[in-house]
Amino acid sequence: MKKLGIIGGLGPMATAYFMRRIIEMTDAATDQDNIEMIIYNCPTIPDRTGYILGESEESPLPKILELAHELERQNVDYIAMPCITAHFFHDQIADSVFVPVSNGVKEAALYLHERGIKNVGIMATDGTAQMHLFDSVFKDYDIKCIYPSTECQKLVMSIIYDDVKAGRRVAMKEFELIKTELLEAGADVIILGCTELSIVKRDHAVGDKVLDIIDVLAADCVKKCAKLRKEYEELITK
Amino acid sequence: MKKLGIIGGLGPMATAYFMRRIIEMTDAATDQDNIEMIIYNCPTIPDRTGYILGESEESPLPKILELAHELERQNVDYIAMPCITAHFFHDQIADSVFVPVSNGVKEAALYLHERGIKNVGIMATDGTAQMHLFDSVFKDYDIKCIYPSTECQKLVMSIIYDDVKAGRRVAMKEFELIKTELLEAGADVIILGCTELSIVKRDHAVGDKVLDIIDVLAADCVKKCAKLRKEYEELITK
Repeated sequence: MKKLGIIGGLGPMATAYFMRRIIEMTDAATDQDNIEMIIYNCPTIPDRTGYILGESEESPLPKILELAHELERQNVDYIAMPCITAHFFHDQIADSVFVPVSNGVKEAALYLHERGIKNVGIMATDGTAQMHLFDSVFKDYDIKCIYPSTECQKLVMSIIYDDVKAGRRVAMKEFELIKTELLEAGADVIILGCTELSIVKRDHAVGDKVLDIIDVLAADCVKKCAKLRKEYEELITK
Repeated sequence: MKKLGIIGGLGPMATAYFMRRIIEMTDAATDQDNIEMIIYNCPTIPDRTGYILGESEESPLPKILELAHELERQNVDYIAMPCITAHFFHDQIADSVFVPVSNGVKEAALYLHERGIKNVGIMATDGTAQMHLFDSVFKDYDIKCIYPSTECQKLVMSIIYDDVKAGRRVAMKEFELIKTELLEAGADVIILGCTELSIVKRDHAVGDKVLDIIDVLAADCVKKCAKLRKEYEELITK
């Protein structure tokens, strides 16, 4: 059994849910069949979107690298970071340690590519959207990214920051509005491309055609460190 | 803000839920208001009940102590262990580190004592029950512990080991049977005294008069490391 290291706290609730999904997806009959994990929940890491968009000068990278090194020192076999906006720094992190680092965006591209999906609606932070985090990888697989209108993107940010991060009830009417807009714009599948949106899926029915990126990341970690339960091979909601 | 260390994986799902409850209970409006945590999820730690009852010779204590020392090395301010059976070793752990270690059983006694509750039904593992983990503390607060019949205690163990730890759907009919028996035997409140039973409460309606010990442990950690949301001051279900 391999040991998994998690750079977490970005945000904290997404990290707890990520841990839960890894456990649910692991083909285990006893405690002892489960994956050993070391989880750093460091919510004080500066906001990713704020830094990426130049609104804040405080970079989250130094602390993230410090945690990656600490996990490496403790002999983890694989590192995951359940925050997609922070995937902006993925290559810098991967280059700084010998341990492989899961790339949720690339895993999502592979997952969609294997299923022949060509048009994907993206719900993510402004940081992820404006830095073309998904586009830059998805284009290699001939997958088109469709983004919400400016109005709807504001609603996405409000769900992430004003609802989930603040521990408030999520405005599902707004979620539905964004989803409908993306489907009408031609999306075959909608990616929940920010792990805070996974909390929306945890607590509410989000309907069909939804791929939660935390599930992609969790399934990747389980496959690398243990055995995936068969029922989690298909991750898009029906 | 203080840093919390968690000795987890006993079991893993309870650890993920414990993390979730801490986050839900923390009075936070942004990521950065949340508690920093280091979580060791070590599900390979030998089974606690098996060792305590002499059915297995492999002690879980050495690994638990190793984790406590590792957390101390990383400067945590408080340590918690979301496994009640492992509280059998609480004093040995607390004596081996300078960092204070949360005692879920004592916190539960204090919580019930402050509310004038005198008769408590205990749902817990055979290890917890037979070692009188609750009785030995609760007697100091004049609280009587009521245990399930031999038949019903078998059902408790089955829910913990055959359902929750195996990732299977919980038999709620059996849960109801145990609860009814304890209430009829005079219990004013039922304690879910094994953190695997907290997963039952997470996923199902357990009715009134239930105190989940993971909530007591989480509220204690939040109060020690940050600020508790007001709505979590009362933890017994209504």
